[in-house]
Amino acid sequence: MMKGKNDRSIRGFSRLSKQEKLNWVCENFFGDSESAQETFEMFHLSDPDVQNIFDGFSENTISNHILPYGVAPNFLINNKTYCIPMVIEESSVVAAASSASKFWAQRGGFQYEIKDVEKIGQIHFFWSGDPDSLKQLFNSELKSDLNHHIAPFVKNMEKRGGGVREIMLTDKTEELDNYYQLVLTFDTCDSMGANFINTILEECLKRLKWLFANREDLKNGDQPEFLMAILSNYTPDCLVRAWVECSVDSLHHPQSSLTAAEFADRFHKAVKIAQLDKYRAVTHNKGVFNGLDAVVLATGNDFRAVESCGHAFAARSGRYQSLTDCSVENGVFKFSLDIPLAIGTVGGLTCLHPLAKRSLEMLGNPGARELMGIAACTGLAQNFAAIRSLITTGIQYGHMKMHLENILNHLNASPEESEKAALYFESRIISFNSVRNFLENVRCARPVK
Amino acid sequence: MMKGKNDRSIRGFSRLSKQEKLNWVCENFFGDSESAQETFEMFHLSDPDVQNIFDGFSENTISNHILPYGVAPNFLINNKTYCIPMVIEESSVVAAASSASKFWAQRGGFQYEIKDVEKIGQIHFFWSGDPDSLKQLFNSELKSDLNHHIAPFVKNMEKRGGGVREIMLTDKTEELDNYYQLVLTFDTCDSMGANFINTILEECLKRLKWLFANREDLKNGDQPEFLMAILSNYTPDCLVRAWVECSVDSLHHPQSSLTAAEFADRFHKAVKIAQLDKYRAVTHNKGVFNGLDAVVLATGNDFRAVESCGHAFAARSGRYQSLTDCSVENGVFKFSLDIPLAIGTVGGLTCLHPLAKRSLEMLGNPGARELMGIAACTGLAQNFAAIRSLITTGIQYGHMKMHLENILNHLNASPEESEKAALYFESRIISFNSVRNFLENVRCARPVK
Repeated sequence: MMKGKNDRSIRGFSRLSKQEKLNWVCENFFGDSESAQETFEMFHLSDPDVQNIFDGFSENTISNHILPYGVAPNFLINNKTYCIPMVIEESSVVAAASSASKFWAQRGGFQYEIKDVEKIGQIHFFWSGDPDSLKQLFNSELKSDLNHHIAPFVKNMEKRGGGVREIMLTDKTEELDNYYQLVLTFDTCDSMGANFINTILEECLKRLKWLFANREDLKNGDQPEFLMAILSNYTPDCLVRAWVECSVDSLHHPQSSLTAAEFADRFHKAVKIAQLDKYRAVTHNKGVFNGLDAVVLATGNDFRAVESCGHAFAARSGRYQSLTDCSVENGVFKFSLDIPLAIGTVGGLTCLHPLAKRSLEMLGNPGARELMGIAACTGLAQNFAAIRSLITTGIQYGHMKMHLENILNHLNASPEESEKAALYFESRIISFNSVRNFLENVRCARPVK
Repeated sequence: MMKGKNDRSIRGFSRLSKQEKLNWVCENFFGDSESAQETFEMFHLSDPDVQNIFDGFSENTISNHILPYGVAPNFLINNKTYCIPMVIEESSVVAAASSASKFWAQRGGFQYEIKDVEKIGQIHFFWSGDPDSLKQLFNSELKSDLNHHIAPFVKNMEKRGGGVREIMLTDKTEELDNYYQLVLTFDTCDSMGANFINTILEECLKRLKWLFANREDLKNGDQPEFLMAILSNYTPDCLVRAWVECSVDSLHHPQSSLTAAEFADRFHKAVKIAQLDKYRAVTHNKGVFNGLDAVVLATGNDFRAVESCGHAFAARSGRYQSLTDCSVENGVFKFSLDIPLAIGTVGGLTCLHPLAKRSLEMLGNPGARELMGIAACTGLAQNFAAIRSLITTGIQYGHMKMHLENILNHLNASPEESEKAALYFESRIISFNSVRNFLENVRCARPVK
C-alpha cells in the first residue's frame, strides 16, 4: 500500500484485502486502534460464506452495520392477517405500528387497492434540426426499429406478463433549447425493475447512436446529441391507496378522556393542518415513512428510491402536503394514504439478502402489488399511531420513557437505579449525559444536582 | 400466550420473551420453522450485553438486520482529509464516492459552508376569540411566562451555547378557521435536538393549558383548543452549502473520449435538465441521498428526517427540482449542493450504537456543523459520480458488472464459470434466475439456450 503526500490519504485502497483495509483505517483514524478493530470485528459474521455475500453488496467494507429487526403482528390487511417485519432503529415505531394494527384489526382492518404499476425511463437528447421531421422520423421508423431491437431483451419479461408498454417522443424545447426525451413506460411485474429498465434504455440509446452513424439516410442529416439514458424514480402511476374506515362511534377508546366524536374531530384537524402547512407536512409524512421504510428495508428494497418518489409526489400540487387524507362524513371516519411505491419481491437484494428472503416468506411470499399494499398499510398505521399520540398524550410520553430505558440499559443500570431515574426524569430533559451523571451520583451516593 | 380467533394473530405478543417471539413467528409463518429460526439466530451477536443494546433501540426484535459498512477514503473537505464511513446496501455507491473523492482531491477538494443551524417547533391550536386580543395577550404576557417557565429545561442547552431563540405567534386563520401556531426556534448545538425540542414544546403546552384553566383573568375568557405540539422536520434554515470548483481545462480525464469542454457542457446540461424536469430531478436527488444517507446511517442519525426535509426543500419553489446546481462561467466549472440537514453528533443513537460512535471517531469526532459539511460533500460527490457515469459510459456498465459478480458470488461460481458468465451476459439481461440457469447449464455441460 502506498500512502499519499498526506498521511491520512492513500492510493490503491480498493485493491487491499478487507483485513488490510480495516488495519489501515484503524491505524490512521483511531487513537485506540486495537480496540477500534475489535469493535468493527465484533459485527463480522461467523460464517465466511454469508459474510462474503454482504461484502459483495457494497465496496470497501470493513464491518456490518446493524439495525434492529422487529415484527409487528396482527396486521389485518385485505382480510388477511400478517406479521410484518420492520427494520428500524427509532424507538417506538414498531410499538406504534403494533398498537395501530391491533386497534384496526378490531374495526375491519386495513384495505388497499393498486391503481397501476407503471414504471418510467427516459433517454435525454438534443436535436437542433426541424422538430417536425424528428417527430415524423420517430413515428415512421425509429419507434418500430427500437421495438424490434429490444425484443430479445424484453422476451422474458413479456413471458411474465410485463414488458415495454410504450415508447414516446416528448418535445421539451420550450423548457430548454433543442431538448427532447424518449419516454419509455414499463411493467416490470414483481421486480422493482431498475436493472431491466436501465438495460433496455441503454440498448435503445446504443441502437439510436448506431442508426445515426450508419444508416445512409440518417448519417448525412441532422445529428442528435445523446446525453443520457436512465430510469426515473418518479413513478406517480405505480400507485397504491391504503385506507381504514369505521363509524365515528367505534373510535371510542376506554383509556382516553376524549369522546369518539372529539377524537375524530381532533384527528381530522391534525391531518388538515398537514395538508396546508409545509412545516407540519414534512414531519407528518416522515411518520408515514417511518413505517414504510421499515418494511422496505426488511424486504431488501431501496428506501432512497421510495423516499424520493414519495416526497416529490407529496409536492405534486405545487405545495408540499400530507400524503394521507382524513374525512369524517355521515358518521364515518376514513383515513387514507395515496403513495407511489416502486418496490419488488424478486431481483435485486430481495433474493440475495438472507433476511430479505425471510421477510418476504414471513409475508407469505407476496408479489410486488401485495407488498406495495402491505408497505402502504404499515405507513398508514404508523401515521395513525403518531397522530393519535399527538392529539392525546403527546409524543414525548412514550418516546422519552423508551429513550430513558435505552440509556439505562446501555449504562447497565440496576432495576432499583432505573426506578429512581424514572422518577427523577419525569420533569427533566433526558439525555445520555444527564442520565450518566444521575447514575454516577446515585452510585457514589452523592446528592443529585 | 393466547392465540386469537385466527391462528395467525396473537394477544400479548409484546410481553413474550425475545425467544418466545421468535418461536411464535417461525412456527406460524414459515414452512421450515427450524431453518427459519437458524437464519434469524445467525445474526444474533455473541455478546449478550451488546445484543441487549440493539434490542433496546426498537420493539419486538427477533434478529439484527445487516447492511454493509464500507469506507470512502481520501475525501479532502475544507482542506482536511477524511475517511468517510458509509452504510449502504446498493452496489457501486461507495465505489463512486471514492472515485469522486480521488478526482476532486486532485482539484482542490470539497468545500462547505454552514448557513445556519436553526431548528423549529410548533404548537398548533385554535382560538375563536378576537385575534387582536390573542396577539396582545401573547406579547404582553404569554411569551414571557413561557420563557420563564422553560428556563430550567433550557439551562443546560444554554450552557452549551444553544437554547430557544424565539417564540412567535403565527396567525393561520386565513388558511383554516381559528387556526394559530406558536412557533419556537431553537439552536440545539451538536445534538439533532428532537427530544429537547419536543420536551420544551410539551412543557409550553402544559403551561398554556394550566394558565387558561387556572389564572383568574384567563379562565373566564375565550378558551383555546390546543391540538398538538411537535418539532418540525422541515428546517430550511439548518442549511449547508457544499461545492467543488476547478478550471474547465482541468476536467479532462485521460480515459474519456470527451474533451474537458465537452464534459463540462454535458455535465451542465444534465444538471439543468434535473432542474426543469421532475421525472429526472427525483432520480438525480435520489443519487445525492445515496451518499448522504450512507453517512447519516453510519453516524446513527435519522435518514427519514433528512429525506423528508431535503425533498420538501427541493420542492420549495413550487416545482420539484434538483438539489444541486452547476455553472460553467469564465472557464470555471462549479458544482454545488444546498441542503438542510438536521443531524447531530451527540444524543440519540450517536452515542448508543457502537458503530455510530466509531464512525464519528473515524471522522475526528466532529460537531454537528462539521458533520453536516461532511455528509453534504459525500452527497455531492455521489451526484458528481452518477452524472459523470450517465454522460459518459452510462450507468449500467459498472452497475451490472457488480450485480453479476454478486449473484455469481452467491451461487459459489468458480473463477472459470465467472469468466464464462461475464462473456455470456455482455449482451443479455442479468437477473438472479438468468444467471442461475446459465450456471446450471454450464455445470451440467448443457448447451446454454
